[in-house]
Amino acid sequence: MENKETREFILNGYKEYLPHLSIDCVIFGYHEHQLKILLIKLKNINETCLPGGYIKYDETLQDAANRILKERTGLDKIFLRQFETFGDPERTKMFTQEKISAITGIKLTKDNWMMGRFVSIGYYAIVEYSKVYPGVDIFSQECSWFDIDEVPHLLFDHNEITEHALKTMRLQIYHQPIGYNLLPEKFTLPEIHTLYETILGKSLDRRNFPKKLLSLGIIKKLKEQRNIGAHRSPYLYKFDKRKYDEALKNGIALAF
Amino acid sequence: MENKETREFILNGYKEYLPHLSIDCVIFGYHEHQLKILLIKLKNINETCLPGGYIKYDETLQDAANRILKERTGLDKIFLRQFETFGDPERTKMFTQEKISAITGIKLTKDNWMMGRFVSIGYYAIVEYSKVYPGVDIFSQECSWFDIDEVPHLLFDHNEITEHALKTMRLQIYHQPIGYNLLPEKFTLPEIHTLYETILGKSLDRRNFPKKLLSLGIIKKLKEQRNIGAHRSPYLYKFDKRKYDEALKNGIALAF
Repeated sequence: MENKETREFILNGYKEYLPHLSIDCVIFGYHEHQLKILLIKLKNINETCLPGGYIKYDETLQDAANRILKERTGLDKIFLRQFETFGDPERTKMFTQEKISAITGIKLTKDNWMMGRFVSIGYYAIVEYSKVYPGVDIFSQECSWFDIDEVPHLLFDHNEITEHALKTMRLQIYHQPIGYNLLPEKFTLPEIHTLYETILGKSLDRRNFPKKLLSLGIIKKLKEQRNIGAHRSPYLYKFDKRKYDEALKNGIALAF
Repeated sequence: MENKETREFILNGYKEYLPHLSIDCVIFGYHEHQLKILLIKLKNINETCLPGGYIKYDETLQDAANRILKERTGLDKIFLRQFETFGDPERTKMFTQEKISAITGIKLTKDNWMMGRFVSIGYYAIVEYSKVYPGVDIFSQECSWFDIDEVPHLLFDHNEITEHALKTMRLQIYHQPIGYNLLPEKFTLPEIHTLYETILGKSLDRRNFPKKLLSLGIIKKLKEQRNIGAHRSPYLYKFDKRKYDEALKNGIALAF
């Protein structure tokens, strides 16, 4: 894929991007009972990794993360949350001149900026994966969803970054609400229950769980019911957007 | 304070330290009813800031944070926890050649490595402040404890970093226990209650609060009582170290 743009990036990228710093994005996807993760297969070498990239000299970290995610996967307007910075001095050591040449088709010298140590800032997000359509960029051969229990061996420390993001997201749930963009506008208690169970990866008490969300005012019961068959018409619920946003901002303490 | 060591650091520090990256440490101190923060007064200029520094090429982030804290304040063996990375492109812009010259006594050029943009990785810790004795280094004139409600205007975005650390620590308390190094080995319920209230900056229910910690097994009641006066002999408690460490590792969900 050697082309002018790639050559410029590899040889002179340090003029546009901060050296030694990168960003990696862990994008979780939820749909019904499933939790997935968005991974990239690199061109020409048999390696899978998180979507990632570099920070421009005049860019905020958040802007860089949003741009990188868009460039690498086509996903736009996704709320990325910073969770941890990874900086083992050896973390990218396996990214040799030969490997980068294999991916890009460009020969690089030992002192090329991409050969340096990189400290990577991790961001995560959770999206409704049936609604997003990832694409590919010049580095990637494929960009697709993997089941969270079937994450393959990833490049660098990306397995560790993924684990860390998952752990952070699971703890975050206890003090910030989730679900606003992951459920239909009106949903049943079993639907939000499944969402929480799937994301937490564990069973939750069927009685205490909704009580908590109701008592905090984050969800409210509607008069409307959904007709799903003979003698089955569960009540519908919706998020109270004001209470939800307040909880996002100030934090809550859930224990279910 | 112009000396050989400082000159070497200012002029050639980029050979030893990663450019564009720094670490800032937010050290909270607890003692009885008070929560404090450790701040540094810079030499020669009227500026107060968090203890901070740079990362060596071959150092992990955690090692760098520990070394920096030790160099700047004399504090050693404190468990620092990473919480957020700050990267506004303008965040250190007020650190002009003139300011650095005023502090160090060394004239520097516009292209000096210290004039670049710095992305800073934040770490925090909480210590029993009556047990630690901060010192000073070559950059600092004074290193001392400030009341958390009386933090002065700080250099760069250090007020924002401090606020963020405080918010993170307060949320963290809901899913990781605290207190092991902040209370005597045997303590009363009012003592641990005061610790949590002081750190959270709010009142907690006197009945529900200890119930939670007891039901999780993090603290246990001893047969021993403390004699503090006529008709007053509250029972003593201690941490169950195994349960405490498990809770640190796996997380808990407290809601008091």
